[in-house]
Amino acid sequence: MTTTHPALTLIEQRISANRFDATHTLADAEIERLVRLAARAPTAYNLQNWRFIAVRTPAAKARLRAVAQDQAKVAEAAVCFIVCGVLADPQALAGRLQPFVEAGHMPAEMAQGWQQAARLQYATPQAARDEAVRSAALGAMTLMHAAQALGLASCALTGFDADGVAREFQLARDGVPVMLVTVGRAAPGNWPQKPRRPLAQVLEFA
Amino acid sequence: MTTTHPALTLIEQRISANRFDATHTLADAEIERLVRLAARAPTAYNLQNWRFIAVRTPAAKARLRAVAQDQAKVAEAAVCFIVCGVLADPQALAGRLQPFVEAGHMPAEMAQGWQQAARLQYATPQAARDEAVRSAALGAMTLMHAAQALGLASCALTGFDADGVAREFQLARDGVPVMLVTVGRAAPGNWPQKPRRPLAQVLEFA
Repeated sequence: MTTTHPALTLIEQRISANRFDATHTLADAEIERLVRLAARAPTAYNLQNWRFIAVRTPAAKARLRAVAQDQAKVAEAAVCFIVCGVLADPQALAGRLQPFVEAGHMPAEMAQGWQQAARLQYATPQAARDEAVRSAALGAMTLMHAAQALGLASCALTGFDADGVAREFQLARDGVPVMLVTVGRAAPGNWPQKPRRPLAQVLEFA
Repeated sequence: MTTTHPALTLIEQRISANRFDATHTLADAEIERLVRLAARAPTAYNLQNWRFIAVRTPAAKARLRAVAQDQAKVAEAAVCFIVCGVLADPQALAGRLQPFVEAGHMPAEMAQGWQQAARLQYATPQAARDEAVRSAALGAMTLMHAAQALGLASCALTGFDADGVAREFQLARDGVPVMLVTVGRAAPGNWPQKPRRPLAQVLEFA
């Protein structure tokens, strides 16, 4: 653990960018690449209970900015993702696991057992919501790491009107808009990474 | 975006490990390194509303395993982190931002404005809980990427008794155990990465 993997350097240097080059755009194929990487994040039971809405036209960005506290970066970054968690649907799990069963990795009975376990785990609305938030955040973080590895800057935003976003972008009733993630080319004038708390305040050994 | 950054390869190859080398241990300094990296993840307002409990003694692992559906990897991995989100405390924000104000990056009035905004944003228990889950998941995902870059395997677990974990590890009342993350050396016999849904099912353009 003495050499430094380039991925560690990225983690250490990542910033939350506020200023983006408004002339920079991303091709849809580049956006697809980002989401394909984000979707490599883990989810409980391999539920993949998420949805990424890539807002990249000026008109759609304007609609999003209006329900996101008028934050300029929503419009200035090449793309602003609405990262949604989806309330866990154990019924859907059979389909999500089927390719893994068919590939011979997972016995069919085990997939059925997972479905039963998921039914128990998400029996309450709070548990289902927690999983939606958790899954979306895991995907969003992987999206930000991927963006940085592709030479792009990003910023996570939680200051938005969730009902407004759901209305403007016609989210399904089981979709929870968990965070916005802007991705684009950084413009000059961004802050450095903000200082972190001393380790002793956040880490405990047991 | 044609060359492949090593961090992208890690994202593409990460697996959720179920089997760990039970003879492998991590020094506390290595655990500290992991958490220092995890805490580079972003949080809203730079709240850093998280806490990592590194469970690494056999006795503590046994206590955790008993409230985590008896999953063997909790005990077999070198360390199992209890990743907690903390219910947002806008009062604490002044201290979190102070080093950034003192370094001359952020005007003091802006830090006060953020505190006021956070007070509004987390006025309801659900909003505070969502932020706790979101922050912990962002930190947990960064922890897993960091572990992989250090040559270690990981697995996220959400199947545990949250009340039991809180009781066994004396979590503060504002601490929400969001997920467990095992980290250690992979043993033979792990599954490959599970198949992902087709992109068209999870990505939408606007």
